[in-house]
Order: sequence, then structure tokens, then C-alpha cells
Amino acid sequence: MTTQVIILNGGSSSGKSGIVRCLQSVLPDPWLAFGCDSFVDALPARMQGADGGIVFDPDGGVSVGADFRALDEAWAEGIAAMARAGARIVIDDVFLGGAASQQRWQKALDGLPVLWVGVRCDSEVAAGREIARGDRVSGMAAMQADMVHEGVTYDLEVDTTHTESLECARIIAAHAV
Amino acid sequence: MTTQVIILNGGSSSGKSGIVRCLQSVLPDPWLAFGCDSFVDALPARMQGADGGIVFDPDGGVSVGADFRALDEAWAEGIAAMARAGARIVIDDVFLGGAASQQRWQKALDGLPVLWVGVRCDSEVAAGREIARGDRVSGMAAMQADMVHEGVTYDLEVDTTHTESLECARIIAAHAV
Amino acid sequence: MTTQVIILNGGSSSGKSGIVRCLQSVLPDPWLAFGCDSFVDALPARMQGADGGIVFDPDGGVSVGADFRALDEAWAEGIAAMARAGARIVIDDVFLGGAASQQRWQKALDGLPVLWVGVRCDSEVAAGREIARGDRVSGMAAMQADMVHEGVTYDLEVDTTHTESLECARIIAAHAV
Amino acid sequence: MTTQVIILNGGSSSGKSGIVRCLQSVLPDPWLAFGCDSFVDALPARMQGADGGIVFDPDGGVSVGADFRALDEAWAEGIAAMARAGARIVIDDVFLGGAASQQRWQKALDGLPVLWVGVRCDSEVAAGREIARGDRVSGMAAMQADMVHEGVTYDLEVDTTHTESLECARIIAAHAV
Repeated sequence: MTTQVIILNGGSSSGKSGIVRCLQSVLPDPWLAFGCDSFVDALPARMQGADGGIVFDPDGGVSVGADFRALDEAWAEGIAAMARAGARIVIDDVFLGGAASQQRWQKALDGLPVLWVGVRCDSEVAAGREIARGDRVSGMAAMQADMVHEGVTYDLEVDTTHTESLECARIIAAHAV
Repeated sequence: MTTQVIILNGGSSSGKSGIVRCLQSVLPDPWLAFGCDSFVDALPARMQGADGGIVFDPDGGVSVGADFRALDEAWAEGIAAMARAGARIVIDDVFLGGAASQQRWQKALDGLPVLWVGVRCDSEVAAGREIARGDRVSGMAAMQADMVHEGVTYDLEVDTTHTESLECARIIAAHAV
Repeated sequence: MTTQVIILNGGSSSGKSGIVRCLQSVLPDPWLAFGCDSFVDALPARMQGADGGIVFDPDGGVSVGADFRALDEAWAEGIAAMARAGARIVIDDVFLGGAASQQRWQKALDGLPVLWVGVRCDSEVAAGREIARGDRVSGMAAMQADMVHEGVTYDLEVDTTHTESLECARIIAAHAV
Repeated sequence: MTTQVIILNGGSSSGKSGIVRCLQSVLPDPWLAFGCDSFVDALPARMQGADGGIVFDPDGGVSVGADFRALDEAWAEGIAAMARAGARIVIDDVFLGGAASQQRWQKALDGLPVLWVGVRCDSEVAAGREIARGDRVSGMAAMQADMVHEGVTYDLEVDTTHTESLECARIIAAHAV
């Protein structure tokens, strides 16, 4: 059954976005890309840093509230509907809730052929790349590196510590046909 | 019936994005925002400037191909599904096809309470704001200013020529309760 | 004497950046543009929100420390040197120190033909545009609207409350030949 | 003699910007950062893609005209003046002219203690990272990878092919005290 959705899960600064862009380049069909960054961009500005929304702690912790969760759930339903309407879709996400986050997506994507991909990166290397990016709260990369994979099951895992984004994308694409 | 979707249609540089951000600020509930810009961001980079994708001509003309249309249709279905799943949503779009573009959204949003809003801006003023933004192909604003409204019907129209984004948002919000 | 430097002073969200881009478009020669935003981008990320650097208070207040001031002074010397080396330059700045900020620039630009331009915007209108931009700390526009002009003298003032950026740029350009 | 200026030269997508941000993080003093990207941002929009300005060819070639060169020279004089006024500065550049580009900087920075750093990256790896970034003309990375180092002499070279940005920054910082 042809893969309709590729979902990448990994901590902040693990290299998901680079892999997504490479996937869109190497996959012969056009795939749409959505992820936690584009979801946060769709929220009202006042939900950043507010109760009910998403709060980035100075130490790298991230917590989300009830309004965030409700909109996030509707958003996931909508992404699934795009796939059911025929679009092939790459999603990148940070499973802050580990296995529970995966279950939420499994429910939304029910019946669709999904390729589950874990994006690993050594915690110290990810922390260094967080500094090199310069646009993220310091500490998120280290805090999320292992946490987001707890209890999550994958069809495939890639590790960006020593493997380039393009090479990771080629490995994933070979499983997505 | 409570408005679930607000859809703004207007030419490039008519001020849609500013109104969307103000709407997200003045509306008491949290509304998600999506639009043609976030859709284009979701496309593979190679579809920008390519047959099948979206081409920005040097004179400001925009043409889209078959792949673009197919993904765009699935995307609209997905946005509608987010609304059906309970999210309140503001969409900003450029109806390059006029009435035909509206029909595509009417089909996708069938059964949902939608507020249709036309965003007008004097062609010359929009062209000046295009220069002030500095990130758009020159000529789009003038070319689209009237074209996108042809044959389109609205619940409400605002004109940003002499009215600030925040004031336009307040007028729209008063109709969206 | 031909104007070599145009310096715009105005509060946050008063419309300086849009005028700068329009100036670069309407002025026949190529002019370089620098400003407080590009200066802050040149700083180490850790100076944002830190003692010694630049701190944006939640109420819209901005305070800068000793390291910031020292680098800012060297930066102004460098911009002046670019003008002395023959480049025509547009600078946009926020004179948080009012007349004292102007004196700092007068010292750096000593001997160069400078056009001093005040960019005014009604405080409430600027606050609305701050919401429409969505990328600034709320409250800066209102707090700075009048403060930055205290004790400052201009060759020319423009007011973006009811005048478009392009029109303001044309007025300024007419004085810059 | 204490290093006042660190200048990094490398091809597009060789990793210069990431190293610059890491340098600003690991160096104990605050250093200002400027580079070819911030210079191009300072130019009038109309100089992008125009004779006299900077033209990005579809195959990755880059050519610059007379206006570009004149402003670029004044800009380099200004950056040098900032250093002479006491600011410590990191510059990243692409020496499209190889040794001639270095001589231009040597002339501007005359008398200042400069650390010259070559940033190498395997051509194929850089081309892959160009795809992962998604915001550059395809082909620049491969075309510039070796070309920009021809005839250039360095105090120090780093290679990002297998070394992280942060590690490169630490190596450079150890030479900059």
C-alpha cells in the first residue's frame, strides 16, 4: 500500500526540517509539508507565552494548555483530511507526550498508510546545533532529545548525529514508495 | 449560527495578513489562521517557478498548474475538516479565478457557517505598499486589485485604503459573533 | 551640497522600514540602508534580554546596557565611515534618548551632509499597526511615539498616520537631491 | 596582539553562519557579526537580479556589477572603521574573486589584527545542505566550494564536512585570544 503520510518525530534541533525539505526534493511526487512550527504560526500571537497556549520556559521546557490541545487536535484531524483527499503529506512533530502523542496521531490518521520515522540526534550535538541556529530557546534540544521517543514505535529510525539530512531523506524515501 | 470560518479575499498587498493578525487579537476565542502564503510554504521548493506549480511572472502575473490545483483542493478540504472538528478559522486567500475560486471554497466549506469578507484596496495605494514591503514581485498588487473580486459575493467588505487593519478587524469581528 | 546620509527617527511601528524601502526605490542612485534592527541582528544572541545588552520589558519599555552602548557607538562610527568612503546611506533609528541620541549621531556624522527626518505617527494608530505586524512586544509603539522626538531637531518631518510610506518617501527624496 | 577581526571565507552552504553564531556564543566578549548576507540586505531591492547589482544565475553562478562593487568597497571600509572604533567583529564572506577578494579586505583592514579563517566543506555535502536549507539557488554550493579558496591564505582552516559548527567555533576562538 503506497505511503500517504510520512511522520517524523524528534526533539528540537534534531534536524527534522532539513530532512523534510530534502524529502520534498528527492520524492518524485509533490508532497505537502506541515509541522509543529507551522501549527504554532497559525495560533494567535497572544497564545505564545500564555496560560492555555504554549509556554517556552527559560530552561528549555515547553508546556501547553487546554486551548492549545483543542486546536492541535482539530489541526491533526485537518491534516489527516488533506491526506484522505489525496495529498501526500510529510509531518514533522515533537512528541512532547511520547507514546500519548503518537496515539493522538494514530487516531487522527486512522486507516491511512503512514510511515513512522524517528529522528534521533545525540543530545550534545543537538545542543550545539541549537546554538548554531540562534533562534531557539537554549536548552530545548538537550531536554527533548530522548524524552520525545519514550514509548514511541517506528517503522524506521534515522540519526542525524553523523548522517546528513539528504542521506536521511534518501533512506526514508526508499521506504515510502 | 455562530461563525466558524472567516474567509478574506483580496489582492496582493491589500492588507489581508495585517487584518488576520488583528482579528486573532480582537476575537475573544483563539482562532487558527491559514492562507495562501502558508499553503505555498507547504509546497516543495521546486514547485515555485515550475510548470505544474506556481509561477510568478516578472510583470506581476501569477499562474498555477495542475499539481498546484490538486494539492490546493486537498488543502482546502483539510482546512474545512479542521473547522468541522471544532477549530474556528480565519483564511486569507487571493481568488485568482474570481467566482470560480469562491465556488471551490463553498464546496469545501459546505454546511459550515462562513463569513465572506472582501478586502479592497485602491490599486495605486496597494502598489505603493508592495514597494514598502519589499518582498513581493512588483506588479502583483496592481494586477490583482480588482480582478480577484470579479463575480465574488460577500457578507461584508472592508477597504484598507483609508482604514487601518485594526479598525477593519473590529468591523469584521462585530459580524462574526 | 548633495545629501550623503538620510537619517529617519521615529518610534516603533511608526513606519520607518517601509519608508526606507520606498526611498531605496524612488531615489535614482543606489543607497545602502542600515538601522537599529540590523544593528541588533549583529549582536550576540545572548545580549538580547540580558544585562549589558538590550532588554525588552513586557510593558513595551526598552533599556540598553553598557556593552550595547559601546558597540552601538562603534557601529555608528562605521556607518559614518561608509558614507565618507562614498556610499549614500539611509539610517533608521529610534532615539530612545531623544536629543542625546541625536547628538551621538551628529558627532559620528560630523562634516557629512545629513538630512534629519522625523517620522511621526499618532500613538493609537501606531499601537494598532504593532498588532497588525504581530512580531513586536506589545506596548513599544505607544510608549515611544512621542518620547523619541523630545528635543530632537529635524530638516523635515513626515507623518504616517494618514500618509502612505511611498508618499512620505517621495517628500523626503525631494529634499535629498 | 589581540585579535580584533575574525574573517571567515567559504562557499555558499559551507556552514559559515552557524559558526558565526557559535563564535558569538563561545567568545567571552561581545563580538558584532556582519557578512555578505547582511550587506545584500542593505542594498536596494532593485539591485537583486539587475545589471550593476548582483545576479544569481539559475545554474548557481553569481555575478556582481559596478554599483555593487562600489558600495561593497565602502561597506568594507565602514566595517574596518567599526573595528578601529573598538568593536570586535566577525565577518563572513564568499571570496568570489579568490585572492583578489582577500586583497580588498586586507586593504580595508590594514593595521588591524585579523584572524583569517578558511571554512571548507566537501562540495557534495555542501550541495546536500543547500537542499536542506531550501532558501538558496540550487548549484551555488557546488560551484563555490573550491573556487572561493583559490589563492587565499589563512591563519587557520576548519572543515565542516565532519565537524560541527560549535566545534569549529571553539577551534577558531582558541586562536582569537
